[in-house]
Amino acid sequence: MSYSAPIKDMLFVMKELADIDRIAALPGHEDASFDTAQAVVEEAARFCGEVIAPLNVAGDRNPSAWANGEVTTTPGFKDAFRQFAEGGWQGVVHPTDFGGQGLPKLIATPCIEALNSANLSFALCPLLTDGAIEALLTAGSDDQKARYLPKFITGEWTGTMNLTEPQAGSDLALVRTRAEPQADGAYKIFGTKIFITYGEHDMAKNIVHLVLARTPDAPEGVKGISLFLVPKFLLNDDGSPGARNDVHCVSIEHKLGIKASPTAVLQYGDHGGATGYLIGEENRGLEYMFIMMNAARFAVGMQGVAIAERAYQQAVAYAKERVQSRPVDGSAKEPVTIIHHPDVRRMLATMRAYTEGARALAYVAAAHSDLAHGHPDEDARRSHQAIYEYLVPIVKGFSTEMSIDVASLGVQVHGGMGFIEETGAAQHYRDARILTIYEGTTAIQANDLVGRKTVRDGGRAAQALLAQIDQTIAALAEVDGQPFKSMHRHLSAASLSLARSIEFVIAKFKSDPNAVFASSVPYLRLAGMTLCGWQMARAMLVSHAKRSEDERFHTAKIATAEFFAEHILPLAPGIEASIVSAKGSEGVLALSEDQF
Amino acid sequence: MSYSAPIKDMLFVMKELADIDRIAALPGHEDASFDTAQAVVEEAARFCGEVIAPLNVAGDRNPSAWANGEVTTTPGFKDAFRQFAEGGWQGVVHPTDFGGQGLPKLIATPCIEALNSANLSFALCPLLTDGAIEALLTAGSDDQKARYLPKFITGEWTGTMNLTEPQAGSDLALVRTRAEPQADGAYKIFGTKIFITYGEHDMAKNIVHLVLARTPDAPEGVKGISLFLVPKFLLNDDGSPGARNDVHCVSIEHKLGIKASPTAVLQYGDHGGATGYLIGEENRGLEYMFIMMNAARFAVGMQGVAIAERAYQQAVAYAKERVQSRPVDGSAKEPVTIIHHPDVRRMLATMRAYTEGARALAYVAAAHSDLAHGHPDEDARRSHQAIYEYLVPIVKGFSTEMSIDVASLGVQVHGGMGFIEETGAAQHYRDARILTIYEGTTAIQANDLVGRKTVRDGGRAAQALLAQIDQTIAALAEVDGQPFKSMHRHLSAASLSLARSIEFVIAKFKSDPNAVFASSVPYLRLAGMTLCGWQMARAMLVSHAKRSEDERFHTAKIATAEFFAEHILPLAPGIEASIVSAKGSEGVLALSEDQF
Repeated sequence: MSYSAPIKDMLFVMKELADIDRIAALPGHEDASFDTAQAVVEEAARFCGEVIAPLNVAGDRNPSAWANGEVTTTPGFKDAFRQFAEGGWQGVVHPTDFGGQGLPKLIATPCIEALNSANLSFALCPLLTDGAIEALLTAGSDDQKARYLPKFITGEWTGTMNLTEPQAGSDLALVRTRAEPQADGAYKIFGTKIFITYGEHDMAKNIVHLVLARTPDAPEGVKGISLFLVPKFLLNDDGSPGARNDVHCVSIEHKLGIKASPTAVLQYGDHGGATGYLIGEENRGLEYMFIMMNAARFAVGMQGVAIAERAYQQAVAYAKERVQSRPVDGSAKEPVTIIHHPDVRRMLATMRAYTEGARALAYVAAAHSDLAHGHPDEDARRSHQAIYEYLVPIVKGFSTEMSIDVASLGVQVHGGMGFIEETGAAQHYRDARILTIYEGTTAIQANDLVGRKTVRDGGRAAQALLAQIDQTIAALAEVDGQPFKSMHRHLSAASLSLARSIEFVIAKFKSDPNAVFASSVPYLRLAGMTLCGWQMARAMLVSHAKRSEDERFHTAKIATAEFFAEHILPLAPGIEASIVSAKGSEGVLALSEDQF
Repeated sequence: MSYSAPIKDMLFVMKELADIDRIAALPGHEDASFDTAQAVVEEAARFCGEVIAPLNVAGDRNPSAWANGEVTTTPGFKDAFRQFAEGGWQGVVHPTDFGGQGLPKLIATPCIEALNSANLSFALCPLLTDGAIEALLTAGSDDQKARYLPKFITGEWTGTMNLTEPQAGSDLALVRTRAEPQADGAYKIFGTKIFITYGEHDMAKNIVHLVLARTPDAPEGVKGISLFLVPKFLLNDDGSPGARNDVHCVSIEHKLGIKASPTAVLQYGDHGGATGYLIGEENRGLEYMFIMMNAARFAVGMQGVAIAERAYQQAVAYAKERVQSRPVDGSAKEPVTIIHHPDVRRMLATMRAYTEGARALAYVAAAHSDLAHGHPDEDARRSHQAIYEYLVPIVKGFSTEMSIDVASLGVQVHGGMGFIEETGAAQHYRDARILTIYEGTTAIQANDLVGRKTVRDGGRAAQALLAQIDQTIAALAEVDGQPFKSMHRHLSAASLSLARSIEFVIAKFKSDPNAVFASSVPYLRLAGMTLCGWQMARAMLVSHAKRSEDERFHTAKIATAEFFAEHILPLAPGIEASIVSAKGSEGVLALSEDQF
């Protein structure tokens, strides 16, 4: 099954909803015009469609394989990664000082989407390298930046994030990996890290691990964690890879999906200690890690959008081809392609509405990130940063949760053929299942949304978004026609539900934390649904105004927005009810452990 | 991961909600007392837990394999099936005349649940044989019954259902398999059938295929389909298996889940024609098939309950064992097992509420089936039959849809470990995915619910159920306490939503069929949610009255019912909104095909 990037929708969102013109007006982004964006997105679409997408099924059937500490990736991956690197795709968003293109996140985002739609397993390698680049940019020394960043950006080397240990998953306080300082200023690292994506592979000349570990006198808990850089091959004086470091891949996991992406168990220091270099200051590792995690979480949210888009395209193609049953309205005597059946339409419209809504929200978040970095006014930067940070756990949590449902609908559209692996729909259902887990489970995103992003600023970022939604609701009231009426009604109700849920979260956070954390995932879901619905509302207003410019595109957008309004947003008040009825010790925690 | 049947909840539902005493009072069911039920269920639980459940993971890792037309099942399956047969489990519900135990469906149902929880792939073989037995009981000749039924019931032979062909899935009008009458009264069958569960295997001495095919002069469409019996080995005069028939398994499918269950492509007549025998009358095949399908659909609904229960048990076990993070309420300084975290509780409570609700509804449906067969009064039989038939597509559609969500939550509770195949949670997620597809997709169930079950009798069966719900709502109003208040409020709202949706379906069925069939699956979901919530309401009233008899069990039941009321039922009005806003040609069918 081929993949064709939804270039038109991507550009529509970038221009009309995320306002790329405003980003291009920022100092340093003069080149980031809509025309540039269009050229980059079209080239990304071509490259991903032609080079990367055809390897997706191959990666599933012939996954990465481990032998004697080495990992061989799926045939074709190595060459594709070389082309990816040569095309400059690793550096789209990174600084020109180190060889990147320095383009805004808003332009990088559709490129990331296309890469992940094409091949989730493949895309994980650059995704992790992006994280390593962010960490070094934030906290690396000048020397570290100079030695590593250019190599990452050319794709000669790749990066990894090493957080998880067998006893330390969501709870990083439990990290035990040790870092012993040496006379030369380096450290010796000892420990086991698990679930390390592309922790070992054959696509690059060096692999640079960013590792959370504890120094001997570090305080307990998360305040005693430091971040270390541990290259697979130590660097020679000229910066080239030299001696093999004492970090070894002892196995890779046998997983439900993303099989081409090797998930490594890495053993540090079994032969005397792995040489590592401190990044930034001791005991500030978690702080640095959070910077890369915000970027990585946003990227995983994009993986959700991406796999949903891919599943949607495959389902549409099948629905246009498969002939089965006469129309229920008697409009034809012969069996028709199943896209003519109302329930198949409902499924496809659901998949499409979720995907378009989540795409729009993510791109808008990316624009806030660009404004947070590049706006000349400090207050504006701060407020865009606050909104971006509020949106990150939603983009991550909501897009990935919906992607599982969308991929599942994709299987359903195929009927019995969906359950047969050869068809390919099942791969999306398997691949998508990791997205709500890694880079922080949905519960971890929801905790972040509640604690750091909603309560800490007394709901200010959330209120700013609600005020913007109100403006859209007012604009909807000015337009005639059922689609706009429906959206006005259901978006109004949903935003009221969201507002009351935010109040609940803030009011009860201290007095009944169990209740708040029992309803944190529903709160995230409600926020995601409302904010994506809001983007669809904004989109339909634009499409209303520009309808005559492209009738086919804009009527489809209005219809999709109406579907979102009538079939997804109406669930919001029910979710609110479940949030505000949550009780802590008298609710979900009422039962004793042995009653389960 | 072991499985332990939830005997206590099964017996509670049988006694308190499905009223087994009433079934035992029916003529012919004098032996079906609660004590008998308890003994049978306990033995089923023991057998399934000890013999069948341990083969579940083995079946996934070492699936059925095809070579040269023969299928070898997973090591251990053959012996387990022998024990299953010797234990008399195939015959629990079937007539004593043919060697069965003649017990009511209400007693057979928990046995089926336990078998499917233990091993979905294994349980499919007896499930299909049950279908073949039903078909012969309904339409077989005395000679056919005498020759085949005892062999099915002893487990010496197994049965299959052959409906699907490459071009004919949901749409059986497209069946092309030919049946040519022979001079001796038999037929020669020619054609290809796909997706034939246990169409070939090594666990029985003969495999008897029930095959939909067309005779030469048959009318087009579904009115020209006849049902044939085609044994793998033709019978000798003494009834023993003799010459090999011309039906051959040319391949089996590589599937997402239920891998131990061979899904065969069967080729009929490549070597001169497969000998088949007409069942009942020509051109009435679909009618007979619907009889076995109602039984099989109910059984697949039980598969949904069963896999949800298994996924729940596995998630609970992990949540009680995995230590991660301190409690959010600060009640402990050390990390605790994750079952103490509110979001994990929310997930487990969701899994449990869906599973218990769906179990209760299915068992109650089984009791209606028993009353429909055994009630001395004809009007009563008819009305129980109508209610049973209304419930079958809901039990099938709702239980299986929820089982996918529940299995997915089971993966989520495990975090990263859930994505690793060794853990076993992922198998349930893969296995469950077929349940909304086979024996009629959810859309097919929803069409049946709308057309045959709601509109045809002008909503009478549905109204009868709504009237019963009203009685429960009235009873809830009499009880003090938050759980009962919550249930009263949300069940009232949900049943109103259901009532209005039923009105919509009936009113628009003729005038706007596209709108009705666009909202048929949401209608099924709303009905399932409301009816399962109603059963939880009935359960909590019983538990309130009997609380002191078993404090631990009944407080858990009340808490689970309250969770259902506060976290699942509140979605009902939103689903209603999506149903009644559905528009046909101006709604989901508004876009042209090329706008997708």
